[in-house]
Parts: sequence; structure tokens; C-alpha cells
Amino acid sequence: MATIVFCSVNKTARTTARRCLSSYSKGLACSGESPLSCTHSPLTTLLPSTRWFSRGSSVRFMSHGTAGRAGAGRTRRGALLSGAAAVTAAAAVAGFLANANHFQRAEMATKVSPISEEKEPEGEILERCRGFMSPPVTDIGELQERKGEMRTRMEMLIMQTQADFCKALEVVDGGTFKVDRWQRNEGGGGISCVMQDGKVFEKAGVNVSVVFGYLTEEAAKQMRSRGKVLKGKDGKLPFCAMGVSSVIHPKNPHIPTVHFNYRYFEIEEEDGSKQWWFGGGTDLTPVYINKEDAFHFHNTLKEACDKHHSQYYPDFKKWCDRYFYIQHRGETRGIGGIFFDDLDSPSQEEAFSFVKSCARTVVPCYLPIVYKHLNDSFTEEEKDWQQIRRGRYVEFNLVYDRGVKFGLATPGSRIESILMSLPLSARWEYMHKPAKGTLEAEMLEALRNPKEWV
Amino acid sequence: MATIVFCSVNKTARTTARRCLSSYSKGLACSGESPLSCTHSPLTTLLPSTRWFSRGSSVRFMSHGTAGRAGAGRTRRGALLSGAAAVTAAAAVAGFLANANHFQRAEMATKVSPISEEKEPEGEILERCRGFMSPPVTDIGELQERKGEMRTRMEMLIMQTQADFCKALEVVDGGTFKVDRWQRNEGGGGISCVMQDGKVFEKAGVNVSVVFGYLTEEAAKQMRSRGKVLKGKDGKLPFCAMGVSSVIHPKNPHIPTVHFNYRYFEIEEEDGSKQWWFGGGTDLTPVYINKEDAFHFHNTLKEACDKHHSQYYPDFKKWCDRYFYIQHRGETRGIGGIFFDDLDSPSQEEAFSFVKSCARTVVPCYLPIVYKHLNDSFTEEEKDWQQIRRGRYVEFNLVYDRGVKFGLATPGSRIESILMSLPLSARWEYMHKPAKGTLEAEMLEALRNPKEWV
Repeated sequence: MATIVFCSVNKTARTTARRCLSSYSKGLACSGESPLSCTHSPLTTLLPSTRWFSRGSSVRFMSHGTAGRAGAGRTRRGALLSGAAAVTAAAAVAGFLANANHFQRAEMATKVSPISEEKEPEGEILERCRGFMSPPVTDIGELQERKGEMRTRMEMLIMQTQADFCKALEVVDGGTFKVDRWQRNEGGGGISCVMQDGKVFEKAGVNVSVVFGYLTEEAAKQMRSRGKVLKGKDGKLPFCAMGVSSVIHPKNPHIPTVHFNYRYFEIEEEDGSKQWWFGGGTDLTPVYINKEDAFHFHNTLKEACDKHHSQYYPDFKKWCDRYFYIQHRGETRGIGGIFFDDLDSPSQEEAFSFVKSCARTVVPCYLPIVYKHLNDSFTEEEKDWQQIRRGRYVEFNLVYDRGVKFGLATPGSRIESILMSLPLSARWEYMHKPAKGTLEAEMLEALRNPKEWV
Repeated sequence: MATIVFCSVNKTARTTARRCLSSYSKGLACSGESPLSCTHSPLTTLLPSTRWFSRGSSVRFMSHGTAGRAGAGRTRRGALLSGAAAVTAAAAVAGFLANANHFQRAEMATKVSPISEEKEPEGEILERCRGFMSPPVTDIGELQERKGEMRTRMEMLIMQTQADFCKALEVVDGGTFKVDRWQRNEGGGGISCVMQDGKVFEKAGVNVSVVFGYLTEEAAKQMRSRGKVLKGKDGKLPFCAMGVSSVIHPKNPHIPTVHFNYRYFEIEEEDGSKQWWFGGGTDLTPVYINKEDAFHFHNTLKEACDKHHSQYYPDFKKWCDRYFYIQHRGETRGIGGIFFDDLDSPSQEEAFSFVKSCARTVVPCYLPIVYKHLNDSFTEEEKDWQQIRRGRYVEFNLVYDRGVKFGLATPGSRIESILMSLPLSARWEYMHKPAKGTLEAEMLEALRNPKEWV
């Protein structure tokens, strides 16, 4: 496990980057610049069409053979693409606004601009990459070579989702995500974007990982216990797993925590055929019940689901309530959303299309709620209750969450990326029980008896 | 699972107690008294020879048939016993002081009074109970009937350990423990003493539990996997498990967190014979390394161990470092102490005698360190580092601790007692890495490479 700089940064650039990182960790600026805007730093947030492609910079993220094309692409379509990326993020918010009058506040109107409903074209790999928070995990040349394959299309989707969401959050907060690229010795790596102690967000993490290699015997056993019949060549099962996942903990107790995760898994069998499936979900964890917010959140998810199958929302809503359940407390973690796994029907194309709809729903599900409560005032007691609910979040994540448990038990995992879902701070009060009739008691009641919000 | 009031409180008293508790939870005092000193409240800290035995009070804790003797006992030996109990707590501190000049500070000298080195007599059940935080879990009449049995002797020891430790902490803090009695539907119950947000202690929990019933198939399987050959009558294995456990999180980052746990397990086999074993340990989790403290803590444990077997300290010290290991961080939780389990040799008497020595070492291990750092000043950065270490404490307890895992997975467990080990507050900073050469880095180094402190 190692945090690495860009894929094909030359040696001088890499050394410079390390120097800057080291200056940064000591709280020193690099060459008079803020370390976060220093182009050498691997922590730099890479803005579209700016630093990655700057002529004359010694930092290039492209693999050999693609640098030339990248340069060309930049002059031809750079501005267009960065604009498109910005519109994508805002569009979702705008789409929502058209249907939900109760969220139309002045501060929101300034953030969004209308776009057409038409499907976003998947476009050229290289061009789309410009809008990402970092070059993708897989070498761009490789992505271009196997452009039509699902693993490429999914990697592009998760990178895009990360970028759209991070940028939307940066606009609200005014802060900047710290971007870390890391490599997994066994194959693959990831990109972790974290904003900590911002103006609006206490801790916001958006992580992409793309890992591959051979399934361990333990993992294969787990797969089999889930009903997968796997036949490996000489007992070996090559796999590829990728996903985007995020947890956002805001400071204001009236802005809920959100979590989402969309993932794809592929296993190659003896005869070269592939087993694959998708999983994912988006769920909300408020500190106080707000029925309008709950309706908006669930309804936005329902609309995305309904486009694909009328049973998706009701089934995946129930699955979500079952999955995010803190058994020892007899409470769900939050007010749910959707959750699904092992989705391998009706076809790969249609399953992907559904996952794409879900991923694109993240911003319109959450951002309007953030804007709505941005300036809500709160008391010390409300902040305390938030901290107690954060404690429950930690309990769920460390005791039950399958992803966290799997990650912690897997040698070579990047612990910081797995545990970035934990809040900046949490609280455990002995025998804390909200008094009857309070808003805190109302919240607990909803967690003990999951509701239909739509 | 229910929190109950005293064993044989009459109905009027019980109703009054509930009323007072309800007033307390609303922050109102009962009849002009502070709710914590109100004799009706089941949360009252029961001081020796005072409220339990007060003539004219409608609250009696004794089971039928013993009340008369209790009354008599009070007039005969009440004052003597409460004195003895107070001395027991202070004695251990004093015993330590005799050997450790470097801790002889003025503030400590005022807290302790010298006592003789002789063994404390086990004495009369009823009399000893006067010094406890609450009546024992088992009915006193029953304890008196089977006075010579190990389960009685162990229950008396854990109750005594709870009382000694709680009282020593109350003296330092100036605060009062909240005492909750609770009952387990399947058999047995416990007494949880918690002091929260005190002057010195952020959260201090000292818990006793005595549970019995039949081993579940899962538990029996676990026992067998640990090498226990168990033959039940008609497949049923009656068991009894009891222990005292405690975690103390102080406010000042220069005062370490301490944890201890001493327990006894008994299983009855087909032919009526019993399998039994002891387990336990005491370990320290400082926020900053202080070699003097570490030496004192480990040396006090070593001296207690050496009285019984020269291999106990070295073996149980290693076991402690292995057990309190946060695998995914590559760190131990703290600087260790001792840990042992399945102790069933050389004889029940000698094993109990060793456990008794350990339990009596808790106060002299920890209190001198608390007093030493009571007035240490600290910075905001030091407090932050403490909160980050608290986060690691939470990680260990929720992810690895066998007791917590077993408790959370066992239906009917009292969750609040299991999770009272969690700190009042904790913090998770993404990619937090202390700079080289700092005291924080020194702490981490000791957690990554366990040291010999004696």
C-alpha cells in the first residue's frame, strides 16, 4: 500500500511533489504558493482543463503514447468539457428544482442553471477525464483500448460521480477537497477526496477504488455462500472490483449526513466467461426529522428507480432499512433510501443504465437539502444530539458494515480510505434517553419504526 | 432486561423511587433534596452504613429473613465496617506509596492513611455488603447459605473491587457515581456505576455482572473450540459467569485511561462436577508516554503477580500486548499491563488468591498516577491528540474486543453497560500523522513496538 503521485509523472516531478507534500505536512507553503494550489503536490485538487494539461508543467498524468493526444484535446475541446462537467453537477439540482417548489430558496436559484433532459453522451475517454478530480485509476491508454467494456464504462461513471459530487460540495462549502491517489500492491488503487473541517462540512469523503487480482480462498468462499457458482482455472479466479463511495457529515445538525456507494464486480471463470454484478445505494441520516426533506430524498430516488422498474424503489427501500440496522440498539442508522446488491439482470446494459441513473441522482437528492438548511440556527443541545447520533453512526460502521469489516480484515487495504466514513467527532453518553414529546424522541421513533416517506 | 430498584423494596417505596427518578431525568430535585442524595432514587449512590440501613426508611435491600439481622449488624458493627471499607480503598494507595518515593506529592499524602500489610479477613457476608455500591446481585440470604462456595467468594470480591475503586475515584473527582441495578431476564443481573462529565473524569464506568442459566449451543461450541470438553445433562449445560470490569477516561490528557476486568466462569457437567476458570487483567492507555508512570503501573502489577508465580507477569504482559492489538492500525491500544484467561491451575484456591491480588492492585496501580497529573496543564493540541487516541479506543472496543462483540451479539445483554467503556467523545481525523520527533510520534512508536517497562 502506498500513496502515489500521478501515473506517469517523471522522476523530477515526483521528487518535487514529495518535497511539497512534506512542506505541506509541516504547515509550510511551497515556493510561496499555498500547498493546496501547488501543482507539484499529489494532494492538489485537479481542476478541469487547468493544471493537468498546463503546457510547460512537468507534471503529466497521461501514460506514454497518450500525452500528445491529450495536448491536442485540450486546445480543441478543453473549455467545452470543463463547462459540460460543471453543468452536469448543477443540472441534477436544477432538474429537481423544477418539481419541488418547497425548496426554491433564493440561495439555490443562484447556484443552478437549467439544462436539457437529454442523456449525457459518454464521449471521448480523454476528454471526459478532464473533469475528474484526478486521472482515473486505470491508465488512460488502457481505458481507451477497451473503451466498450463494462469495467471501463463503470470506471468512467464512478470517476464522474466523484467529480460531480465533490464539485457540488466545494461550491456550497467554499473549501477544497484534498485528493490522494493510492496504489494497492496486489493490483489497482484508488482516489480519495476528503474535505475536513470546512465551513459547511465537518468531514466529507468521496472515494473511488478500482482493484483487481485473484480472489482469495476466503473471498471465493464468501461468494459461494451468496449462491455464486464459481469455476476457476487451476483454482484461480481473476476478479475486478470497483466503486465510488461517500459519506458526508455536515456541521449544522439540521443538515443530514448522506452516504452513497455504487459498485461493480467481475469474476473471470475457467472458460473465460465473466460473472458480474452491480450493487449500491444512497441513504440519509438526519439528526432531526424533517418530513419535507425525507419526502424529497426518497422521492428523488423513487423517480430514478421507477424509470427502470416499478419494483426497484419499494424493494430496495426495504433492503436499505434492513441493511442499515443497528441490531444492538434496535434502531436503523438513518431514514434509509435505497440499497441493492448482486444486481445481474435483466441485462448488463440495463443494470448499468439503472446504476447510472442512481449515481446521477446523488447530487439532486442531497444538495437541495444542504442549501435549504445552510443558515439554520442551532443550539448547543442540538449539537450534542448530533454528536450522539454520530456515535451511533460509528457503531454501525465498525460493528455491522460489510464493506468496513471486509476492508479492515483485508491485508493491504487502505485503512484511511475505509475509515474516512467516520465522523470528525462523536459522543457516547451513558443512558441517554430523550424525553417524551421532544424532537429527539421523534427522531428515535422514526429509527425504531422505519416509515414510508413517499 | 429491566433496570430494577432494590431487591425487596416495598411497593410504596418503589413508586416513590420511580417518581424521583422521573423528576431527576427532568432535572428537578425531589422534595427539595438533590436527586442524587434522595434515598428513594434507585440511582442513589449507597454509602456504607448510611441509607441502606437507616431506621425508619422504607427502603430496605435485604431479602426476606435477613432484614432483622441487618438491623442488628448495623448497631453492632456499622461504624467499624464503614471505616474498614474506607481504609481498604486507601490502603492499596498507601501500600504503594511506601515503595515509590517518586510519587510522594503533597496532595497524595493528605488522601491516604497507613494500614497494616496483613490480609483483609473475608468477614461476615452481611457486614461486608455494607461497603458496596449497592446490594450484591445475588440475594444476601443465598450468599450466606453458600458462603464457602467459589461463586459466592468471587461475587463478594467483585462487589468489593467495584466499591473500593468507585470510592477512590469519587474522592479524587469530588463527584458521585450513578448506580444502576439491572436484571437479566434469563437469570442474574448487574450493577453499573457510572460517573460522567466529572471534574477529573470524562467518563468512569465500573460494572459488576453475575449471570447464570444454560449455555447456548453457540456458546458451548465456542467453549469447545477453546479446548473445553463439556458433557451436559440432556445436552444442557448450566453455567454461572461473573465479573467486574471498568474503563476510566479522564479529562486531562496527561492522565491515562485505565481498564480492568476480573471474571469467573463455572459450568456444571452431567455428573454434577464443575469446570471453572478465571480470567482478567489491568491495562493502561496513556495519551502521552510517561516512563515513570509506565514503570509504576507495570511494576505494581509485577509485584502482585510475583507473589503467585514468577512466570505470571512476563507471560500475562505478553498476552496483554497481543490481545489489545488494533490489527488494522498496526498499533496496540495502550501500553498494556497484564491479561490472562482460562486460568484453572494450580488449584481453585490459589487461582482465586491470584485474582484477588490482582483486583486489589487496581487502586494502587492507577490512583497515584491520577493524583500525580491532577493539576498538569495542557494545550488544545494535546486535547485533540487525546480525542484521536479515544477514536482508536473506540475502534478496538467495537471491532476486536471479545467481551463487547459477545455482548452485542447476545440477546438480552444490557447494551448501556457494555458500551459504557466508550469515551464521552472521540475524534477521527483523516490521515492524521504526528510529525517526527514530537511527543505524539513517541507515543505511536511505543504502540507500534511494545516495550518492557519494568
